[in-house]
Amino acid sequence: MITCRAAVAWEAGKPLTIEQVQVAPPKAGEVLLKMVATGVCHTDAYTLSGADPEGLFPVILGHEGGAIVEAIGEGVTSVAVGDHVIPLYTPECGKCKFCLSGKTNLCQAIRATQGKGLMPDGTSRFSQNGKQLLHYMGTSTFSEYTVVPEIAVAKINKAAPLDKVCLLGCGVTTGMGAVRNTAKVEPGSTVAVFGLGGIGLAAIIGAVQAKAGRIIAIDINPEKFEIARQLGATDVVNPKDYDRPVQEVIVDLTDGGVDYSFECIGNVNVMRSALECCHKGWGTSVIIGVAGAGQEISTRPFQLVTGRTWKGTAFGGVKGRSELPGYVDRYMNGDFDLDVFVTHTMGLDDINHAFDLMHEGKSIRSVILF
Amino acid sequence: MITCRAAVAWEAGKPLTIEQVQVAPPKAGEVLLKMVATGVCHTDAYTLSGADPEGLFPVILGHEGGAIVEAIGEGVTSVAVGDHVIPLYTPECGKCKFCLSGKTNLCQAIRATQGKGLMPDGTSRFSQNGKQLLHYMGTSTFSEYTVVPEIAVAKINKAAPLDKVCLLGCGVTTGMGAVRNTAKVEPGSTVAVFGLGGIGLAAIIGAVQAKAGRIIAIDINPEKFEIARQLGATDVVNPKDYDRPVQEVIVDLTDGGVDYSFECIGNVNVMRSALECCHKGWGTSVIIGVAGAGQEISTRPFQLVTGRTWKGTAFGGVKGRSELPGYVDRYMNGDFDLDVFVTHTMGLDDINHAFDLMHEGKSIRSVILF
Repeated sequence: MITCRAAVAWEAGKPLTIEQVQVAPPKAGEVLLKMVATGVCHTDAYTLSGADPEGLFPVILGHEGGAIVEAIGEGVTSVAVGDHVIPLYTPECGKCKFCLSGKTNLCQAIRATQGKGLMPDGTSRFSQNGKQLLHYMGTSTFSEYTVVPEIAVAKINKAAPLDKVCLLGCGVTTGMGAVRNTAKVEPGSTVAVFGLGGIGLAAIIGAVQAKAGRIIAIDINPEKFEIARQLGATDVVNPKDYDRPVQEVIVDLTDGGVDYSFECIGNVNVMRSALECCHKGWGTSVIIGVAGAGQEISTRPFQLVTGRTWKGTAFGGVKGRSELPGYVDRYMNGDFDLDVFVTHTMGLDDINHAFDLMHEGKSIRSVILF
Repeated sequence: MITCRAAVAWEAGKPLTIEQVQVAPPKAGEVLLKMVATGVCHTDAYTLSGADPEGLFPVILGHEGGAIVEAIGEGVTSVAVGDHVIPLYTPECGKCKFCLSGKTNLCQAIRATQGKGLMPDGTSRFSQNGKQLLHYMGTSTFSEYTVVPEIAVAKINKAAPLDKVCLLGCGVTTGMGAVRNTAKVEPGSTVAVFGLGGIGLAAIIGAVQAKAGRIIAIDINPEKFEIARQLGATDVVNPKDYDRPVQEVIVDLTDGGVDYSFECIGNVNVMRSALECCHKGWGTSVIIGVAGAGQEISTRPFQLVTGRTWKGTAFGGVKGRSELPGYVDRYMNGDFDLDVFVTHTMGLDDINHAFDLMHEGKSIRSVILF
């Protein structure tokens, strides 16, 4: 049993508090990780806000980590003490119907317990003075130490800076993977990216890597256009500049619509715009953003009957153990930059400030350094 | 100028009347066809009812024909007098952005004039005593003679019976093509077909040809189950037999959902069921049915984010000139049957009876013999 510092979310809507917590040793098939860095993502804020219908408390949030293996439980063979890893909220068991399908990254091996904030054996490794604290997304990276299942860690290049590649644990991989794995954008394609937060910017990077011919960046905050252009956007569109639906603006701008669009916000109205700005006959729209509970998307079926496709993606369709290490390698190769996403760094004590910066729209990502 | 018999729709909601009409000779790039047989499809009834917002009158309806080339206009090279053809409401010019994309069958070369009931030069070849009658879907098969653009005819095997393969001009190809071209169903797949009219039955045939492992046929009319089973459905489901949504029934029946589903009705609520009965991670739902004007489809975006895909198809994604002749050849090969679709045959004089049978749900297809 380790005692360490962690940010605990005691109840919805309240700031986190930094606490001494107890972390039990890894059981069979589990791994104890020493956290080096973690990003603070909108999904953490969503759950903390209380809007997440599946949110449970008290809990240790965080799911965008870079860590070092501190100890392994019985039977663990794929990682060893000292390995550098990224915890995976979407695990990869390699054995379930989903993993074996070859069609999805949505491994369901531990879905039920993970959704309850528990390890696969139905218990928590976190506690404080005997009172149980829950895991979050199977990762709980807002703690100096965390325990995760072996199937939920990606072993990565040891030379990679964990305070940067931690961002590959969620947002950046989600955006890049949506372009690469889910949409499979071809060279010369026209692409529209709705929402220029971390995921949208990552989608732009993905589109550049896919050699898209035209990349249209859309946001209602024009301050985001500079960085979008820096990363490779060829056009920027602010829907507020027009008195007609933005999908019409984009259709006109592109002689009929885009080949691929990405919704990176979680707004159901924008999801509709993203679909309807797609080209008749073949345009594909990918939903990346997570909408509020109970919200629905709508369109006229004619949009689909005339050849558009509506899809979605989680973690960019990326299989964590088999594909994510390649993302780290490509970053180390200089294929893309992560610094641009890290607008703030701070210690765990300042983690509530990271949430404030996010809510104020002042950060892309704050990275917590342990 | 030929004078011949045709069924004319003078206004919405009124029966057709059999009239002597004048058919002008084919202009450059056009072909005069002598009709041998035509199916009567729900789309004809939809336009005749007045519900089609793009319906125009007076018009000669019909779009599921089998015909012989009677004369060709200047510059026509791809067909000759005496060729057997199926008129195409979705033409294939081979030169427009859509044809060149390799991604769609929705050739747009003559879309604008076709939508106005006119030939590409903006005029009609049909008239009665000098008063213009409009073309319909670029085909107008409810006439002994019709004129169509060269790019809107598929030249087929002369040995094929035109009173059967006329059905490949719309419904049968739409259902089979949706499985083959749009969904690309793989061997062993589980498939759900919603609605057991002509298109749904054709989708079942397509699924059998694709070697689907399980084919679930869904309809609220249990009288349709026998033929569905004959054609290869392995399971039948009547939503009225359950007090919960049919998508839940199908998810339970299939250990998580189907790999592919097809909506063959045009009901937006069924479209939602068809999507939501798909398997998490990879299930793909294809909308084939045409919904009423202004109706919308809805779902929670979570359905897509967790890996389902929503698509649609028109004419089964089949390119008329390059692919449809292959459907005729496969029929001639004995790969599938068309007799099962032809529940009634009659002469042009009885065409209103064909509409009555359709409205009463008593026919799959009535074929008019000229």
